[in-house]
Amino acid sequence: MSDLIETDALIIGAGPVGLFAVFELGLLDIKAHVVDILDKIGGQCAELYPEKPIYDIPGFPSISGQGLVDNLIRQIEPFHPTFHLSRMVEGIERGEDGLFQVRTDAGEVFRTKVVVIAAGGGSFQPKKPPIEGIDAYENSSVFYAVRKMEAFRDRSILIVGGGDSALDWTLNLVPLARRVTLMHRRDAFRAAPHSVEQMRRLVAEGRMDLLLGQVTGLEGEGGRLTGAVIREESGRVLTLPVDALLPFFGLTMRLGPVSDWNLDLHEGQLVTVSTETFETSRPGIFAIGDINWYPGKLKLILSGFHEGALMAQKAHRYVYPDKRLTFQYTTSSSSLQRKLGVA
Amino acid sequence: MSDLIETDALIIGAGPVGLFAVFELGLLDIKAHVVDILDKIGGQCAELYPEKPIYDIPGFPSISGQGLVDNLIRQIEPFHPTFHLSRMVEGIERGEDGLFQVRTDAGEVFRTKVVVIAAGGGSFQPKKPPIEGIDAYENSSVFYAVRKMEAFRDRSILIVGGGDSALDWTLNLVPLARRVTLMHRRDAFRAAPHSVEQMRRLVAEGRMDLLLGQVTGLEGEGGRLTGAVIREESGRVLTLPVDALLPFFGLTMRLGPVSDWNLDLHEGQLVTVSTETFETSRPGIFAIGDINWYPGKLKLILSGFHEGALMAQKAHRYVYPDKRLTFQYTTSSSSLQRKLGVA
Repeated sequence: MSDLIETDALIIGAGPVGLFAVFELGLLDIKAHVVDILDKIGGQCAELYPEKPIYDIPGFPSISGQGLVDNLIRQIEPFHPTFHLSRMVEGIERGEDGLFQVRTDAGEVFRTKVVVIAAGGGSFQPKKPPIEGIDAYENSSVFYAVRKMEAFRDRSILIVGGGDSALDWTLNLVPLARRVTLMHRRDAFRAAPHSVEQMRRLVAEGRMDLLLGQVTGLEGEGGRLTGAVIREESGRVLTLPVDALLPFFGLTMRLGPVSDWNLDLHEGQLVTVSTETFETSRPGIFAIGDINWYPGKLKLILSGFHEGALMAQKAHRYVYPDKRLTFQYTTSSSSLQRKLGVA
Repeated sequence: MSDLIETDALIIGAGPVGLFAVFELGLLDIKAHVVDILDKIGGQCAELYPEKPIYDIPGFPSISGQGLVDNLIRQIEPFHPTFHLSRMVEGIERGEDGLFQVRTDAGEVFRTKVVVIAAGGGSFQPKKPPIEGIDAYENSSVFYAVRKMEAFRDRSILIVGGGDSALDWTLNLVPLARRVTLMHRRDAFRAAPHSVEQMRRLVAEGRMDLLLGQVTGLEGEGGRLTGAVIREESGRVLTLPVDALLPFFGLTMRLGPVSDWNLDLHEGQLVTVSTETFETSRPGIFAIGDINWYPGKLKLILSGFHEGALMAQKAHRYVYPDKRLTFQYTTSSSSLQRKLGVA
């Protein structure tokens, strides 16, 4: 069963470039839905450096990643985009009616006239620990994210990592699980000090275990984990009886499913586009921002903004094949100002 | 006699795109001088719509033309650009040493490794009134700007116009001239109310004249004006004995001297550039912002910003032919942050 959603444009990626694309499309009366794999709006800016200042956005001597995202969200408000977060786009097919059918892993199907890939460095994917045979346990005993806490009730869980995700899920799962063991390579944590403190209190109260070491192997059968082989900091090797392993080793960027969409790629990693329209080799599918390539390409947020503006001109031809587009300025056009809600 | 000024880059145009080019060049250690025909920084934004809101600068739901200019001036402060205002670039020649020699109408000669044309719609030029034979009197008896007030001492001057320039020069020249007559088509002025009030006081005191009407012809010989034929609002036609005419009919944009620089043009009006480097057909001369053309070009401030970033990469090759350029982000590079004075 799938939800069918009709739209003029589907934007893949809710980073700054995807957000500004909503604006440029909106000025041309093109309605957009936005899908992102992260659970929040803002892409890398919000995920990787929300508080770090950026110095090269024109007009801002300095602005934080989150500050830029917040401004863009306000700027596109007049166009009421709909966001679909925490889902990955899996496939894009073109129907006989010429419309694209875009499927997500959350079961939606978008029927859209144009697709705009603004997926930055690609999908954020969990980094996998280098443990032999781990694939066999994924999604039954090994999880890189917690989708439903209930699934972990009464299980013996090994959580590995020293960052916020590892600590937060440790604290969340202790009340629910049979037993939680947190393991990190050394006794120093990158997570918020407050969380580390809470974790140490739980350890002191005997309500969970903390181990220093690494997982070197897995034991089990048919996808069901029974134990994790651990080498402790001291050199001692032991097998910890667990039936769930949650490694939180951070996120990495991968081109992800985009590579399966039959688009011409540059060096297998970036989507080749025209500098006139930022259209890919598949008509009606555009790529803007860090994910695209053309001669001279720089991976600047600023360039993605420009690319979105030119993309929208060509998108208009697909969405309104019979309408002629007259180029107008927001400073002087009362029609654009009405759309922006300022006239 | 001319001043010789050495620089890495000469930017022609101090509008937002020229200003941001200072930033992008500065990040790559390329020192810039900036020349503009206007007497202030900011180009069209400051001259034509300082108080009008712009809605399509990414990250600003709304910003005034002057606000954007002020922000950009702050953003480029770390790079200490030198501005040369109220001068027009007349010619660009390439010396035998490979450097460009750029002459202005104020007598400077810039010796520079690269030239960046960011001249927007071109030069702001005075609008000429449609009076037959006016050309013959230009620069001897007819002036579109006052360069030296002394040149008007004891002359009988007819100033035509209803805006700030007409009123300001009326007030400035009354004490100096034999007689000043201000003429406007109707008894309503666009100039600052305070100036209009001052002018009316001088008229009431008999120290100058105000006429309502239009100049329909000129009398004189050998470039020396003796009288202006005037049709008053009432229909009466008279000849006013004057030896200087100053029409202030506003400014208009023209490609101006750029058209003489031997650059490939698009439809005779815009400078054709590569979308990889934004270089013109003459190596080492770049064109960014509204003055350039390439397939897909939109005259957006935003696009000029992007073009400046890519231009700087190629400019680096001319300025530092032996240095390899590594692409860095302001968010993460401490070397860039030192240049910006924030690390």
